Formats: sequence, C-alpha cells, structure tokens
Amino acid sequence: MPEFELIRTHFAHLGAARSDVVLGVGDDCALLAVPAGQELAVSIDTLVAGVHFFPDVDPEALGHKSLAVGLSDLAAMGAEPAWATLALTLPAEDGRWLRAFAAGFAALAREQGMALIGGDTTRGPLSLSVQVHGLIPAGRAIRRAGARVGDLVCVSGTLGDAGLALRDLLAGREVAAGPRARLERPTPRVALGLALRGLATAMIDISDGLVADLGHILEESGAAARGERSGESASPGYRRGASSAADAALGAEIRLAVLPLSPAVRERLAQDPDWSLPLASGDDYELCFTLPPERASALPPLADRLGLALTPIGRILPTAGLVCIGPAGDRWTPQRGGYNHFADAG
Amino acid sequence: MPEFELIRTHFAHLGAARSDVVLGVGDDCALLAVPAGQELAVSIDTLVAGVHFFPDVDPEALGHKSLAVGLSDLAAMGAEPAWATLALTLPAEDGRWLRAFAAGFAALAREQGMALIGGDTTRGPLSLSVQVHGLIPAGRAIRRAGARVGDLVCVSGTLGDAGLALRDLLAGREVAAGPRARLERPTPRVALGLALRGLATAMIDISDGLVADLGHILEESGAAARGERSGESASPGYRRGASSAADAALGAEIRLAVLPLSPAVRERLAQDPDWSLPLASGDDYELCFTLPPERASALPPLADRLGLALTPIGRILPTAGLVCIGPAGDRWTPQRGGYNHFADAG
Repeated sequence: MPEFELIRTHFAHLGAARSDVVLGVGDDCALLAVPAGQELAVSIDTLVAGVHFFPDVDPEALGHKSLAVGLSDLAAMGAEPAWATLALTLPAEDGRWLRAFAAGFAALAREQGMALIGGDTTRGPLSLSVQVHGLIPAGRAIRRAGARVGDLVCVSGTLGDAGLALRDLLAGREVAAGPRARLERPTPRVALGLALRGLATAMIDISDGLVADLGHILEESGAAARGERSGESASPGYRRGASSAADAALGAEIRLAVLPLSPAVRERLAQDPDWSLPLASGDDYELCFTLPPERASALPPLADRLGLALTPIGRILPTAGLVCIGPAGDRWTPQRGGYNHFADAG
Repeated sequence: MPEFELIRTHFAHLGAARSDVVLGVGDDCALLAVPAGQELAVSIDTLVAGVHFFPDVDPEALGHKSLAVGLSDLAAMGAEPAWATLALTLPAEDGRWLRAFAAGFAALAREQGMALIGGDTTRGPLSLSVQVHGLIPAGRAIRRAGARVGDLVCVSGTLGDAGLALRDLLAGREVAAGPRARLERPTPRVALGLALRGLATAMIDISDGLVADLGHILEESGAAARGERSGESASPGYRRGASSAADAALGAEIRLAVLPLSPAVRERLAQDPDWSLPLASGDDYELCFTLPPERASALPPLADRLGLALTPIGRILPTAGLVCIGPAGDRWTPQRGGYNHFADAG
C-alpha cells in the first residue's frame, strides 16, 4: 500500500483550512503556529477492531467516532479544537471503506473547524489512533483536580444510551435508533466545554462510565486539595501510587432519582432495575463537571442556549467514596470496575 | 487491562522533566506551552508487529526504535525534540515485556530531553503509534521543498546497513552485529538536523530508501520552484495530483563511487553488485539534504564535531529524473518502488 497515494486519494483536504497550519501533510513533520498566550491541549486515543468497535461497523460512523472520542477529551478540558493526526492501520486497501471512513472523519472535522495535519497509513490488523490538538488561553483549562467540597456534580445530556445499544448488540437484540446513534456517532460536547471555562471547577468526559470517571475527579481533586500533587507540575504528573491516591480522594453523593435518562434507558430500567446501565456504561461521551452551588443559576440559560440538558445530580463530600442515593432513599456504594455483581444493588 | 494502572506502573516518569509541560499524563489532555516565536513540528508513525518488526524482537530495542523513528522525522525538519505521546496496543499484559519496552523508550527520551506527555493503552494485535513534537524558531524549518538546481545532494552516515540486516534475517542467515544494531536500534540524527538550520536548503530522513526519499525532495522542490504549491500554505498542502507532481519534479545525479558504505555493505556489494541494497533499503534513518556548493566547506568541521560522515554524493539537475553514475562511468535511472529487476543494473 503506497502510503502517500492512499493519503492523497482519500484524505486530501480533510477538514478545515486554518491559518495556523504553517505546513500540513506531505513533509517529515507538520508545522503549527500556537498563538501567543494559548496553551496546547493534546490527547491520543486508539480504537481497535473487535475491541472498541465491531469490525463490520459502518465505516462512515467509525470515521466520525474516531475523531469524536478525541474531541470529547478536548471538550473535557475546555479546549477549542484545532488540529488532528490520524494513524490508520488497515488489513488491505479498500477504496470504498476508506472513502466512507474519510467522509465521516471529514464531516466532523469541518463541523468543528479542525484541520488534518498529518498521519500514517500502515498495513495490519484494523485499528486507528487519532491525536487531537486544541487551544486554551493559558491557565484556563478545566482539569480533573479542581473539585471542592460542597461543589455540585453535574452531567450533560443523558446517561446509559450507548451502553444500552451495546448490550442489545451483544445480546443479538434489535437496537433502537436513538441508542445506536449514541454508540456509533457520539456527539462531543465541545461547545459546552468552552462555555464552562470560568464556571466549572473540575471536568472529565464520561467515556468509561460515570462512576469510574467521576472517581477520577474525586481522586485527582482530593490529592490536589491535600497538596499531594501539584496542579502546575513540570514533571509528567503521574500519581505517586494507587493506594495513597484512593485514600486521599474526595467523595460524592449522587441522587439516582435525578439522573438524566432517555426514555429508552428509563424503559429498560423499569424492566430491569440494573443501575449499572446509566452509572457504569462507557461511550456516552457526555461531560461530568463540578461547580460551586452559587454558580448553578448559570446552568439553565446555558442548557437553553446549547439545547442540551445540564443536570446537577449530587455534590462533593469531604470523605472518600461515592454514595448513591436510590429513588427510595436507600444509600449504597457502587463499585468501580466489575459491575457484574451490581445488577441487583439498585 | 486497567489502562491507568498500566501506564502508571510502566511509564511513570518516562523521559525528561520539562518546564514547558504544564500538565502531563493523567487528565483528559496534556497541556503544553510552546514558547513564543517557536513553531511546533509534529509527526506520527505506527509500527505493526509482523510488518515493521518481528513479533519476537527485543522489546527494549523496539521501545528505542518506536521513538527513534519519530525523532528522525524531527531531525529531518531541524526541530528540537520536546514531547512524545505513545499509543500502545498489546495482545495481553506482559510485565516483563512492558518493562523492557519502557526502558528502551525512556532511555532514548531522556537522552534527547523529551517528556512523555500522554498516551493510550489498548488490547489488540501488537502495534504502537508514537507522535513526536518538536520546536523550531518560526520560519527556520528545513523542508523537502527547498532544493535548487546546482545544490549538492548529501547524506549522513552510511547507507544500506539496516537493509543488509533485514535481508539476512529474512534469509535465515547470520546477521552481523553492526547491521543488526542499525536495523533494530537506529540513531536519529537530531544534532545534525539542528546544525543544518541555515545551511541545508532541503532535507528528508531516509526511511524508505535513498531513491524514494530523495525523490520526494525532487518532486516537492520542483513543484515549489514552479510555484505549483505554496511553501507557506494555509491549507493542508496536499499535492495536486501524482502525474503533474512527477512532471514538475527536479532531477538529480548521484555518483555511486562516493556513496558512503560500511565495510559490511561494501563486502556484500563485492559479492553481489546489487545497488538496491544501499539505494533502496529503508530503515537507515540517515538524513539526505541539499545545500549550495559554496556552503560545502561547512561540512567537514561539522562532520568532525558530530563524529558522523557527511558525504556529498551528487547534485540537483533542472530536469526530472534521478540518474546514477556507476563506478565505471555508466549512467542509468533507478526505478522507485520495485527493485526486483534492479539487481543487475549496476
């Protein structure tokens, strides 16, 4: 597979033209101009066939999702999308597949004003890595580590839709169009991330499920509050160790009665009260964020402007642990990770 | 495989600490500060088991090579290495393999002053993508498109060593230590790339073989000279089309008698005069660059300082095509790509 030909044929002019791209695809490196006063936000994600997507998934949807996953990471920092690179590994050259994949990728890139500035195409088992690059005024990124005791915990959109589609697909059941679209063509909440600069104290995107991802906010914010890791660090910022991080974590309580659920998820929960569906399913790509209660009045007009539900679901507590308050007032602690034993906890 | 645990265990503090890393691994994005007046150079490369390396290759060497390939791209622009991201796909968690891989990656990162700022670990067929990020004073990058008629064509080091090792490995022959090291642990020519700012008019790293990579310089420089593509472009800079690019290309002649060859490659050529070995083998990761003849006097002191051969091997011609001048004065045109019919051309 001649790499250059492949890129030229299928990925030419993919995405938006941007004046900050000094030199794009076609040299040893791309050259980029980061405006003065801006920090660069970067994130790389890999999707592997058979692990992150079904090998026979619609390639146009896969092109969309491969960029959406990274855009969701930019959104979760409050970054403005700028550039992307694409490393694509394919078992064989398949023009029809590539055209569809490129179309899905390009449509989202253009919609978000992103330029594709580099990439690599290789032969091998189907997988792809996308690195996204965004811009944030220096010091204004919204990190995981900023939540404070008493802050409200909020989420965008609805939770559990992608998980519902995945469960039905794996079970061989018919999949409703709404949940399928959430799974295969997630909408990164970029505009929300930008709007929450100066409002949210901490933020993360829900890619691994609310419990796991809120858990990252609790751990990072707890450690930061106790001064165990520096928010501004010259080192890569790795944690000192799992057990000390968990001990230092903040806690949170969330009220299941107010969890934002689509009709499809609500209906499934009525049939089978398994709260792991909205609490532990990945791939929703909504944002989970915290903000002081006195800023809560900013949410309704923001939700109106964006046409997106923004729901306070709980608050940050001083002691480690996540507590769920069930619809009947029962309190219990969900487990991170293995949720097999969780089905009857609600 | 718990992604965060894996990264924390094996990739903590990988590489150098840098003050321009505002936030490293552990949030939705890394945050980076590009100094004012600098452009950002980025390149992403994927290595797939069974395609780019043998699945049983020494993981420490693979860790080294996975970063070296990207460093070579930075070198080829004259960029100073800064940051790297690593997307690693593994069939299973293997602590011993990961430790060795991380050690090889980290040793080269530290040597080059690079910080690992982000990554992703996924389960799947063994492959990895590394994106490198470097810094260049604005406008000083050395592109492929700057060669002018009459410029000398130069290469660093020796050519064909990695190809010799690969041929012997594939044939089941014993592989000499020197060529094997060139194949498995290539040395990116970063210091040379930096030193050639202001000297070289065009540059590329030799990853696909001299003929193919010099060919890129000839095409890009020809098109730029004819004004068919802008050197400073706001668009991604894709070529307009293969045939018009080839028509617009510059040419070059190279003198095989002065091609820099190691004793091992020289000996093999004496047994089998197949010039595709030094001309078309990939993976050497030397630099090919052009410069005006009046600057040639800068090369010997630079070669002395770097302890690296810098050899003028030919010159740029106004008409498209690459001409080889054999040791006996015979002139012939090597073909790009398929070299099977090339063995007896010398």
